[in-house]
This record gives sequence, C-alpha cells and structure tokens, in this order.
Amino acid sequence: MKRSERLVDMVKYLMDHPHTLIALPFFAKRYDAAKSSISEDLTILRNTLANNKDGILETVAGAAGGVRYIPFMGKQTAASFLRELADRVENPDRILPGNFLYFSDILGSPQDLQNIGKLIATKYAFSKVDYVMTVETKGLTMAQAVSRFLNVPFVLVRRQPKITEGATISVNYVASSSDRVEKMELAKRSLPSGSYVLIVDDFMRGGGTLTGMEELVKEFNCHVAGMSVLCESKFASRKVVDDYQSLIKIADVDRNKKLIKVQIGNILDQINFDRFS
Amino acid sequence: MKRSERLVDMVKYLMDHPHTLIALPFFAKRYDAAKSSISEDLTILRNTLANNKDGILETVAGAAGGVRYIPFMGKQTAASFLRELADRVENPDRILPGNFLYFSDILGSPQDLQNIGKLIATKYAFSKVDYVMTVETKGLTMAQAVSRFLNVPFVLVRRQPKITEGATISVNYVASSSDRVEKMELAKRSLPSGSYVLIVDDFMRGGGTLTGMEELVKEFNCHVAGMSVLCESKFASRKVVDDYQSLIKIADVDRNKKLIKVQIGNILDQINFDRFS
Repeated sequence: MKRSERLVDMVKYLMDHPHTLIALPFFAKRYDAAKSSISEDLTILRNTLANNKDGILETVAGAAGGVRYIPFMGKQTAASFLRELADRVENPDRILPGNFLYFSDILGSPQDLQNIGKLIATKYAFSKVDYVMTVETKGLTMAQAVSRFLNVPFVLVRRQPKITEGATISVNYVASSSDRVEKMELAKRSLPSGSYVLIVDDFMRGGGTLTGMEELVKEFNCHVAGMSVLCESKFASRKVVDDYQSLIKIADVDRNKKLIKVQIGNILDQINFDRFS
Repeated sequence: MKRSERLVDMVKYLMDHPHTLIALPFFAKRYDAAKSSISEDLTILRNTLANNKDGILETVAGAAGGVRYIPFMGKQTAASFLRELADRVENPDRILPGNFLYFSDILGSPQDLQNIGKLIATKYAFSKVDYVMTVETKGLTMAQAVSRFLNVPFVLVRRQPKITEGATISVNYVASSSDRVEKMELAKRSLPSGSYVLIVDDFMRGGGTLTGMEELVKEFNCHVAGMSVLCESKFASRKVVDDYQSLIKIADVDRNKKLIKVQIGNILDQINFDRFS
C-alpha cells in the first residue's frame, strides 16, 4: 500500500478513535508496512495537524507506547465559531414568553454540536475525564457531542424516575428558576465509584441544577472533573457555582422590546491553546 | 503543500462535513494547488475508501459539481458489529423488573453510537432525508448519531410540554406498552412543512410510538422517509408498523430464568451494500 493510501485510512481511523492509544505495530500490520514507514507517516500527520491548528497527535514512547489523536481546536477557529454563534443567538425571534430562549435548532444541529463538543473537549483534552454527565433533556445532545470527542461514555440524570434504568441514587436540589426543591436521580449501575465526571448542561441561571449534579457525583463517590455550559445568563441573582466554563452569555433579554444581547462566554480564557506541537 | 499533507487535511475536512457537496475550487484555493492535483488527490481518496469498504466519495460533474463524502459501512463491518452487539445485549444482568432491558450503557457509548449512527446512515445514504425525528428521551442519542452521519438536523418530540419550545402541534397515540392514549408534541418552528423525516427510536414493542410520530409528521405536512429502531421485541402482540429497520431483535426474555435471547434485526437485508465505486 502506498503512503498516500495509508494516510487516508490512518486519518480516518484516528478520527474514529480519538483519545485512544494506538500502538505502532497495529498500523504496521494493518498496512503490511515497515515500522519506519509508519513512523514517517505519523510525522507527516502530526505536522499537518499542528500546522493547521486542528488537532494534536501525541506520541507515547516506550514498549507500551504508540500514538493518540487528540481533538483540539485552534484559538482562531474557536473564537470565530463563538462570535458567529453569539450573533445567531441574538435573533429576537428566539425570545419566548417568560423570556425563555429557543435553542432547539442549535442543540439539534450536527455542525453546531460538532463545534460545541470539540471546543469543550479542547478544554478538557489533558484532564482526567472518565464520564460526561448531564440532566435530561436539553443538555443531552451537548453531553453526547463532548463524549464523542473525549471518547468517554456519558450518563443522563433523570428528573423523573424511569422503569428502564433499575436501582437509582437520588439527591434533592434547589431549582434556580423556581426556587423549589426538586429531585434528580441516576441509575446506580451507570457510574462506577472513583470516576472523574465532567458535568455539562445547556443553560445556567443560578447554577442550582449544576450544584445538584455535583452532589450526585459525590453520592456516587466520584470526582467532579469540571463543569461546562453552552449558555449562562447574567441575570443569575446569586450564582451558587463559580468554577465553570460558558460558551456564550446572555447579557440582556426583553421580549416586549424584542431585545437580546449575547456575549462570548469565559471558555476561551480558560484554555491554553499553545499545545500544538 | 505536499500531496500527503493535502490528503491528511482533506480526509479530515470531508469527515467533518459528510453529505456536503464541496466544489473542487474550494480545495484548490485551500491548498494553493492546481485543480489537476486536487483531482488526483480525490482519486486516491475515492479508491482507498472503496478498497477498504469504508465510505464513498461521490463525484458530481458539471459547473456546479464537486465531491461529496458519504459515510457508508461495509457489509462485513456491519454484520460483525451487530453480532457483537447482540452478544453483549444477551447478558442477563440487563433484565430489569417487568422484563424491561437496561440499554443506557449502549445508548451512552460514543463508539456504539458511532456504529449505530453510521449503519442507519448507510441505509439512508441515497434517500432524501431532511430531518431525523425521535421522541424523548432514550431515542435522542441515536437520533443525534444518525443526524451526524447524514449531516441533517434532528428534532425531539416531547411527551411532556416544555416552556422553552414555543408553540407546538400535538397528536394522540396509543402506547403499545400500556394501551393508554397518550399525547406527544413537537415545537412548530422546529420542522418546516414539506420536509422528509427519518423516524428513529431505541425500542419498538407494538409500534405505537412510531405510529404516533408518523401522525405527527403528517400533521406538519411532511413526509416519512423511513423508520429505524435499535431494538425490536418479538413479543409485539400486533405490530402496527411493518415498514422499518431494526438492528437487533429480542427473541426471548425472562427475568426469573435469567434468560435473554437476542438476534440480529432486519437492517442488513434492507441495505444494498454494492455501492462502493
């Protein structure tokens, strides 16, 4: 097989298996090629990703070594995606009665989810994350997108009990929007103790839901690896969470005036983009 | 830029934009290369995908032409994934009280979802599909996976009304599991009339939920492009739906006997795998 053919297949394989250590002999066997040729292929691949600021190929030395493809977004790509997203969210047609916002188109768009997932996975590219967690329903598509790029499973916390999940552990939390005490629960078997859990959600007002998920992570004897939201509201009367990333921030919204102002969130400041090698 | 570098970036770009027509001048400009070089690159790419039976690069001739990457799974890959999935589902620990089955691990696994999404997208690779539709909650992760590979948006039908979706259209349907009449609804603005809609769900018993979604598609003046489920139960007393694909089929389940038998569904028989060019 020629180098060009190997490269086509290699890129495809690595993109289908992000954050997975692939030993060199695997590729050597797959392409019936010498290890030295595979090494050269991987150098080309690594340099191209680095030059385009569009992903990292990490080399792990030693007998148990190999390469690992790490989805990683360049700063410019990230910034222009967020600017463009903020512009699109500023459309006043999104404002629903009660000043709620319509986000279902974004949370149902494969291209937006790809960018959202890749950006949050960039933030956590070098952190220990075993699971992504979210609460039903709207955060789910985001959780899945992040999970794809980190290549770890995701778990869905329920607000209503489900018969198809078996035994659960539940916690109470104060919903920021209503100030009421509510309940959320997660299937016991879905999250092994000791896991590092990245919490994501679509929208943060006061942070009550996020705090509830933090509680739940602790009840499972797990660790919070981080918290990311698509959108934060600056109206949050008193945020109970202060360590998180947001992609965008609603600065103002008024249905009567057909007014909505959206800024870029704090995620860009929290990523070290100088990782391309 | 060298051919090898162009190929790395090109594969990455095409995989990030499946089912999207890319004009040759786009690549020529991106790599500052002659159109003839780009044509040669694309021939290598097309042949490699075809030889590996792992995707199709479609060429569209003419002034408005270009290339389109179509995710397409080979028959052998598909069959071995389904066999392996059926084996995993046969674990009796999955049987919950009431003979319900635990599927959350599969529906939360990025690698499984990738295979599920790619396989269903293979079935509909050459059909007109504008939207993927599912009903909350469990079908959602599957819908998103299919949507990614067809590169069309997905919409989520609600069983409970949501304040963050605006005006809705609703239908009544008979839930196969309970024989009760229930209601499902979809945000009006989420689905333009005239669209072709692929309906997916995680589990089909009698097909009542699928029929409900079919009704809803009609209420939106849209067309059903097809219906796919991850898992069908052979217990279905009287299936109200007969035109669908299933990935796996539960042939028998008994919690007391710790017994579960799983077969491969009918999807493989419904795909023309001789499309690699």
